Amino acid sequence: MTSKKQTLVTLDMEGVLTPEAWIAVAEATGIEALRRTTRDEPDYDVLMRYRLDLLKENGVTLSKMQEVVGALGVKDGALEFLDELRELTQVAILSDTFEQFAAPFMRQLKYPMLLCHRFAVEDDMVVDYEIRVPDPKRKAVAAFRSLNYQVIAAGDSYNDTSMLIEADDGFLIHAPDKVKADFPQFEAAESLEELLGLIKGVL
Amino acid sequence: MTSKKQTLVTLDMEGVLTPEAWIAVAEATGIEALRRTTRDEPDYDVLMRYRLDLLKENGVTLSKMQEVVGALGVKDGALEFLDELRELTQVAILSDTFEQFAAPFMRQLKYPMLLCHRFAVEDDMVVDYEIRVPDPKRKAVAAFRSLNYQVIAAGDSYNDTSMLIEADDGFLIHAPDKVKADFPQFEAAESLEELLGLIKGVL
Repeated sequence: MTSKKQTLVTLDMEGVLTPEAWIAVAEATGIEALRRTTRDEPDYDVLMRYRLDLLKENGVTLSKMQEVVGALGVKDGALEFLDELRELTQVAILSDTFEQFAAPFMRQLKYPMLLCHRFAVEDDMVVDYEIRVPDPKRKAVAAFRSLNYQVIAAGDSYNDTSMLIEADDGFLIHAPDKVKADFPQFEAAESLEELLGLIKGVL
Repeated sequence: MTSKKQTLVTLDMEGVLTPEAWIAVAEATGIEALRRTTRDEPDYDVLMRYRLDLLKENGVTLSKMQEVVGALGVKDGALEFLDELRELTQVAILSDTFEQFAAPFMRQLKYPMLLCHRFAVEDDMVVDYEIRVPDPKRKAVAAFRSLNYQVIAAGDSYNDTSMLIEADDGFLIHAPDKVKADFPQFEAAESLEELLGLIKGVL
């Protein structure tokens, strides 16, 4: 059934369009403890304070982090996926990343709109971080729906499920089995190509 | 004063980044009556019905309209302006145009987010149009502000002033003298370069 509404797609960034930035910094700097994720430390603020302390102790500058991310490249096919999607509908990336951290990825993806958070930076060192708004992905989907868009959301993990629930249509992409099992109501794609097909089906 | 908030810029399209699409179709088809604007007919619905009747009477297809717009090109410096802006902040184009009409412009501008309306199309003819939401520019600015963004808006005419008022910072660009006189509270730029300077001043 074709919807009568205009459409807008919201996408998670890391794991969907790009690799995980913190993991890349861990690998490039050899600071293994930067591999810690919300799976190990569910309290995001505790995790972020831990990460910022590690950056400081090891003298890892923002420039260094951006250099690592820039050298990393986006996922295979991510730019082509976005280009085809942008021919068909509007797109916003919703992420818990930070503007300065994601900038090299956005350049490679031809600047899709990215709604995320921001580092506080002094002398090229990340000294703090600012969460723009609580539950930002869900709230962004609600904001676009308030503008009378049919919103189609896709993401890979638990922190995406509130936006998938808020959206008119939600899809999982590259999701771990546990996420798929816990949210069987969302069709799961295993590639960007498959996701594009699912999205086209509801445009 | 540097704001603590993350920023997002909303821009009008026609007259700011692109030429006026209806005027271009009038010129390319020789249908002089398509030059009629909201200055001649303030009731937008009456104007749009008039335009659609003219398209039908003259057999002007959507493909033809898109061909005209595609051949037209965007304004000088518009892509460079957007590219520099997208390095600095997030950008959304807010327009009273229609998705299918603006598509060739968006392709040339590397797909910024465009929130606008949509034509109803049958057999390559525009048969109707759908207004997504009333007062869409103001509502979009309010939606982004609800996500805790400092919103900076720029446009050239009366239909932009409600979004300029709703925004944290509003600028006029290429505005007629009458608009500038009626809204002296908004600084007025005469070029995209000047507008970029004004925007940088409030980021």
